[in-house]
Amino acid sequence: MVPDLPGLREVMAAADRIRSHVHHTPVVTCTSLDRLAGCALFLKCENLQKVGAFKARGATNAVLSLDPAQAARGVATHSSGNHAAALARAAAIRGIAAYIVMPTSAPAVKRAAVEGYGGRITPCLPTLAARESTLAEVVERTGAAFIHPYNNPVVIAGAGTAGLELVGEVPGLDAVVAPVGGGGLLSGTAIAVTESSPGTQVWGAEPAAADDACRSLAAGQILPSIDPKTVADGLRTSLGELTFAIIRRHVEGILTVDEAAIVAAMRLVWERVKLVIEPSSAVAVAVVLAHRESFAGRRVGVILSGGNVDLDHLPWA
Amino acid sequence: MVPDLPGLREVMAAADRIRSHVHHTPVVTCTSLDRLAGCALFLKCENLQKVGAFKARGATNAVLSLDPAQAARGVATHSSGNHAAALARAAAIRGIAAYIVMPTSAPAVKRAAVEGYGGRITPCLPTLAARESTLAEVVERTGAAFIHPYNNPVVIAGAGTAGLELVGEVPGLDAVVAPVGGGGLLSGTAIAVTESSPGTQVWGAEPAAADDACRSLAAGQILPSIDPKTVADGLRTSLGELTFAIIRRHVEGILTVDEAAIVAAMRLVWERVKLVIEPSSAVAVAVVLAHRESFAGRRVGVILSGGNVDLDHLPWA
Repeated sequence: MVPDLPGLREVMAAADRIRSHVHHTPVVTCTSLDRLAGCALFLKCENLQKVGAFKARGATNAVLSLDPAQAARGVATHSSGNHAAALARAAAIRGIAAYIVMPTSAPAVKRAAVEGYGGRITPCLPTLAARESTLAEVVERTGAAFIHPYNNPVVIAGAGTAGLELVGEVPGLDAVVAPVGGGGLLSGTAIAVTESSPGTQVWGAEPAAADDACRSLAAGQILPSIDPKTVADGLRTSLGELTFAIIRRHVEGILTVDEAAIVAAMRLVWERVKLVIEPSSAVAVAVVLAHRESFAGRRVGVILSGGNVDLDHLPWA
Repeated sequence: MVPDLPGLREVMAAADRIRSHVHHTPVVTCTSLDRLAGCALFLKCENLQKVGAFKARGATNAVLSLDPAQAARGVATHSSGNHAAALARAAAIRGIAAYIVMPTSAPAVKRAAVEGYGGRITPCLPTLAARESTLAEVVERTGAAFIHPYNNPVVIAGAGTAGLELVGEVPGLDAVVAPVGGGGLLSGTAIAVTESSPGTQVWGAEPAAADDACRSLAAGQILPSIDPKTVADGLRTSLGELTFAIIRRHVEGILTVDEAAIVAAMRLVWERVKLVIEPSSAVAVAVVLAHRESFAGRRVGVILSGGNVDLDHLPWA
């Protein structure tokens, strides 16, 4: 059973709800990057978003949507990092507790971010099973509302507000590319973009080493990646039922890239565009550079999903 | 003899002249940086400017201001890097030659940028004397118009357009801080900001290891730094007569910071703000963090002058 899918109406309501708590992020262009890609790129800078990632949008929408009784018991989640920081921040805005189950493999900078917003971390092993069982214990103990990182219609609607801003600001986009891990950003983007700008295609960008969305779309059923190894730490999760249903309906296709292409695209954006992006963001840029046949000569929006990296462990060092 | 100083009228004319050739760069804010600084910072992102630096503004204004006969013989300059790339690009826009005298110590990424825009590089030793004699030979041979990197009223007026955009976009700024090397950015900013927003102070930010502007202002005469050693490679040059005259008249003061503070501020902006800035830009951020008494509780614009760095040689590695 899939619950009612969110649509453009929910994305627009989310935009109103979160407006005063998140950045309307800039769209950046770069001639030298366009030349390399063979198309006109419009980079939506969610790396410059609060908490350094688009996740601020969905988490804030979710926390502000809770009824007062639910909110009083706090919120909880499991996350590899950016959703955790975003939920902790959103909870702090509303003055409620945030309980965060975080894998021991998460980068130190992401743990520090959660703690900086007052989030209470419970460590777990870096597997989906461990995350879920630890979270269940936390929810049982606290009564907190579980805010899933992506398989939640309110989180998806919030994530879609970045794409809504992008198509509102850049006319005539032929395509928008967003990275896909659990699918919250891609599904939210797909709703916002295809429903408000029918001429614009939405593509997913995925590491070949964690290609569950690509395989699931081909198979017509969710085929999770089991403990995938990719530098794009934000994209190791697999689709949920809700994100899968939306992506099947609204997304043109999923394109994949290998690890070397991800690292090269990340470095290219740092060097040429002067933006610090994390590997997950670089996947979307890498897809445009690698799959030129899909984008040549067109106007292409790219959602740079986040910029949280550990500067002491850069992937090209 | 100092020539007539440019004023707000010249900055506004420059803004009109260059508008279609440069970016109106975004202004970025960051709560965690504000908390550390104890004031509200508005970061003017000239690192996202064409050629990765504010220098695109002055060079473009200079090239587009040349009369056709002068322009036909091309332009020439000496530069540690960003002005060189900017002049090469501006010349390419107008379809004329750019002859660039560049010290052998310039970062590889800056040489590559000049060549990418079709500029013709003549290498020289990294001293002001070697730059000037090599440039004289080039100008003698080609008849090109010398476009000084900073001690030129048209270049200064162009540089001032960043500050003009900043005060036009962010109301009620108490202060604007810009780094100072040769003084083109600082003097242009001072004209644009103090003449269009009389309540806003302008401060210069300088490495203590290359503090000629600070010493010159105190002494009432230009006291150059001789071959200074600082990580802020764009700020090793000393004031010219023109920039000195403007800075004396319009700038509140020059504040200095040590090398460790510059590197720490650079890393902080990369990590928290997600912007790639070069060390020269970090000097302005470091000044705000180090001289809290001048900025506490105020609204402070900071001009992030550029983002051209060699990712293989980061100063904290």
